[in-house]
Amino acid sequence: MVSKNQIKLISSLHQKKYRLAHQLFIAEGVKGIDELLRSNFELEHLYSTVDDFKTIPLTQKTVISDADLKKISALTTPNTCLAVFKIPKERIILNEGIIVALDTIRDPGNMGTILRLCDWFGIKQVICSKETVDLYNPKVVQATMGSIARVNVNYLDLKTYLKATKLAVLGTFMEGDVLYSTELPAEGIIILGNEANGISPEIEALVTQKITIPRFGDLQQTESLNVATAAAIVLSECKRRVF
Amino acid sequence: MVSKNQIKLISSLHQKKYRLAHQLFIAEGVKGIDELLRSNFELEHLYSTVDDFKTIPLTQKTVISDADLKKISALTTPNTCLAVFKIPKERIILNEGIIVALDTIRDPGNMGTILRLCDWFGIKQVICSKETVDLYNPKVVQATMGSIARVNVNYLDLKTYLKATKLAVLGTFMEGDVLYSTELPAEGIIILGNEANGISPEIEALVTQKITIPRFGDLQQTESLNVATAAAIVLSECKRRVF
Repeated sequence: MVSKNQIKLISSLHQKKYRLAHQLFIAEGVKGIDELLRSNFELEHLYSTVDDFKTIPLTQKTVISDADLKKISALTTPNTCLAVFKIPKERIILNEGIIVALDTIRDPGNMGTILRLCDWFGIKQVICSKETVDLYNPKVVQATMGSIARVNVNYLDLKTYLKATKLAVLGTFMEGDVLYSTELPAEGIIILGNEANGISPEIEALVTQKITIPRFGDLQQTESLNVATAAAIVLSECKRRVF
Repeated sequence: MVSKNQIKLISSLHQKKYRLAHQLFIAEGVKGIDELLRSNFELEHLYSTVDDFKTIPLTQKTVISDADLKKISALTTPNTCLAVFKIPKERIILNEGIIVALDTIRDPGNMGTILRLCDWFGIKQVICSKETVDLYNPKVVQATMGSIARVNVNYLDLKTYLKATKLAVLGTFMEGDVLYSTELPAEGIIILGNEANGISPEIEALVTQKITIPRFGDLQQTESLNVATAAAIVLSECKRRVF
């Protein structure tokens, strides 16, 4: 059983202001929850239609009906389980290796996909501009497929951060050094720009190396790549050089 | 003005069975509509809150209210315009260069992103299993950002198609030839698998070259890549060899 007040609280966590107020967020699906449980995230409570997390003590889990799960879920088609976790304190920034910086990524799916990609390529640190979608948005958590547990994410004033760094700052643009043939630093910050507007002018001014992904299609067309696929191409290229 | 019957017809096109019955689909947003108009797609009618497509004859466009646009739009936040286009006849398959084959891609955003990626890399042909999400799903059309106008897409029995081909058939798996160091054919079919289950066993049996994208993260973790980002990495690698 889940009470009306609990339903109200959990549903409120779909919104950023309530996540901030309660310092809690939700994760859905066995895989994602399992990855969070195996990491340093602290479980508040698990709600599940089947009792399939045997290691969680009874005081921290409740078996609920499909109907109740639908009420608290942020998904159109809910899974079998939803967990409420505590939002951890922000950790210090790891200023080494390749760092990915998000300049106002708005789409939760893109954000989650980028974190999953960073995890795959062993990127430990993601820096987000304050306008970037919230890491604990349920759709972001979902799209990370558990990678949220393994990549350190900090929100800060991106301009101030970039002004202070001594690392190379790379960004992709329509014109720049050709990705496949230019030298790429082993350490540096890779900027990913907003879905509609790309990298903002004030951030562009702080980029030390502009790179371009060659196009092979009809060059007359005004094409662009989705930000997560562009990120995949650039990170793969950085990593293949050190493989 | 848009009549109740028109609203009913256009809204019905959000669903595949009505798109099939009427042989019509919808596209939203100036950029996407503009790309379709400049290609071979035949406009049925344009509905717009501002009269910003000057070249379209008056008989083919209607200025409508924001409220009416909201009624016919498939988007949560509608754009300023929505166009109804005729579904073109399926063209013959272009059996040359690199062909991308989708083995039951379900997510409209992934499908659209993959088409946009194919367009960028000059891939002319995408083959879809019959279980793959419909090309004319409004969310797919939206996510292609106009690339739907430039990539030829056919739906067929993927198993039969692959059995008959003489081309190399590549697929990404957790184990296989390392992408960065293996030889890749200049022509061939690249299979992209379902979001949850990957490439199905019956399609896997027809793959002639298994490739793997190296992981750099904590190898103890059961990680995977989003299908569109995996596609980006593989296509970029194929194209950089011929750059």
